[in-house]
Amino acid sequence: MKCGFLDVPFSVLHAMLVNGVAGSSISIRDRGLLYGDGVFRTLRAANGKALHWPLHYLKLKYDCDALGIACPEEALLCAELDKVLAEHPDGVIKLIVTRGQGGRGYAPPADATPTRIWDFSPLPGYPLEWAEQGIKACVCSLRLSAQPRLACVKHLNRLENVLAAAELNNAQPHGEPAAEGLLLDSEDRLIEGTRSNLFLVSQGRLVTPDLSRCGVAGIQRGRVMAWAVQHGMALQVRDVKLEEALHADELFVVNSVIGLWPIRELEQRHWNNYPVATQIRHDFERQDE
Amino acid sequence: MKCGFLDVPFSVLHAMLVNGVAGSSISIRDRGLLYGDGVFRTLRAANGKALHWPLHYLKLKYDCDALGIACPEEALLCAELDKVLAEHPDGVIKLIVTRGQGGRGYAPPADATPTRIWDFSPLPGYPLEWAEQGIKACVCSLRLSAQPRLACVKHLNRLENVLAAAELNNAQPHGEPAAEGLLLDSEDRLIEGTRSNLFLVSQGRLVTPDLSRCGVAGIQRGRVMAWAVQHGMALQVRDVKLEEALHADELFVVNSVIGLWPIRELEQRHWNNYPVATQIRHDFERQDE
Repeated sequence: MKCGFLDVPFSVLHAMLVNGVAGSSISIRDRGLLYGDGVFRTLRAANGKALHWPLHYLKLKYDCDALGIACPEEALLCAELDKVLAEHPDGVIKLIVTRGQGGRGYAPPADATPTRIWDFSPLPGYPLEWAEQGIKACVCSLRLSAQPRLACVKHLNRLENVLAAAELNNAQPHGEPAAEGLLLDSEDRLIEGTRSNLFLVSQGRLVTPDLSRCGVAGIQRGRVMAWAVQHGMALQVRDVKLEEALHADELFVVNSVIGLWPIRELEQRHWNNYPVATQIRHDFERQDE
Repeated sequence: MKCGFLDVPFSVLHAMLVNGVAGSSISIRDRGLLYGDGVFRTLRAANGKALHWPLHYLKLKYDCDALGIACPEEALLCAELDKVLAEHPDGVIKLIVTRGQGGRGYAPPADATPTRIWDFSPLPGYPLEWAEQGIKACVCSLRLSAQPRLACVKHLNRLENVLAAAELNNAQPHGEPAAEGLLLDSEDRLIEGTRSNLFLVSQGRLVTPDLSRCGVAGIQRGRVMAWAVQHGMALQVRDVKLEEALHADELFVVNSVIGLWPIRELEQRHWNNYPVATQIRHDFERQDE
């Protein structure tokens, strides 16, 4: 272990890999730091398997392509992932791919070699009842900006999420804090959660916001969309206003770490029955076993 | 030198400081990498002095405040800057301040200790005639997104600049390449250059785009604005359309590394006389001696 000088507990260091070598640090000249010039994936590991790895790799490739970063070969990443899983069969695995090191200046160097970074953390201890009985959600005041060139991509420019998550932390000095914040764009369209994608169930249809202007298209969003198609349920990807969401029969958010959480409370509206969300969650949990 | 294992020439390593210690790496858990959760400054060093350090520190403090990052004390940064200057009296010095290391999740940890990163690079060898005779500029196709919460701030979320700079590199397979690209927002307003702020001289007035929706307000922009006030020249900070710029008497861009470049060619329009830009440049060069 070359890099034990950093202030990180030794016990977790062996699950950190940088370009295939145990390590917990990157160059200060890496463009991932300098400009957020990279993409990332957050994977759930369970029983020594990274759930939905093929979907994660496809998405990583899509996101790298969007930035013109040469996506590392799947076989190389799989071999590295296996090293991480061998040490940590259960928890949350993060994979970052940056454009690599680069000289001064924004322009991407033609010969940059992408940096591959793996890290591990334990599964967060969310209350089990959030999945079953739903969460309290709120609407963040931060509005997402529209950038079609970066929409859908899970890149490392995440300051909007940071500002929105800070609102969640600072809100509700009394009473139950919101477990997730929903984000609107500047035109009052509902886009996503601070760390999740959003679905509505309305008149027997599944509806999820169009992400062509902003937002991150996560792989769990894709899985829910595929579920709708497989189960013959009408699916709409389109603009959604908050008002429509407040009148939906069900609302739920998804991501790879939380799984699926129905929304129980949002802006004085309450729900207590989530038949579609519960069916999807059960189907997904069965697939993940 | 603790960190000589990275693939960086040894000769430059001693000018790299991380939290006051010689080093060329940061933790892969630094939020600067994970989310671009930090800010930066690019300083010009000349004859062992960092030009306009007080302005840079004020701007750093403003930018840290905008993100809720505790800005390091000026005395601490000055002491570190002196170490860098002692090794490298002339060139370009970069200072990055990130929110520091943080656990998983977007929310800023309440107890994060900001990371201070210093790096050095030689002054780029731009042709001298660019300052005197002007540059060729182009208009980038990438449109800046509007995010009032982050406007003006020089934060680490710079993918829009990366994409715009890549256009510059890829454009003009034949003929003279553009030295700078100008950026519009989604409403066709002219905002800035990919790495510079923009000014127009028009009917005896200095005009610079309003940056309340997007763009970075650099310290050289502030210096030009102060120059106008000191010299009794009318100054307007407002929305500017490309069409107006194409009909301006002079156009010029500024930043701390390039200084001031007049624009000689933009979208088939040509200029060859820059009395105001030249006066400002000469005044600035005198101040910097």
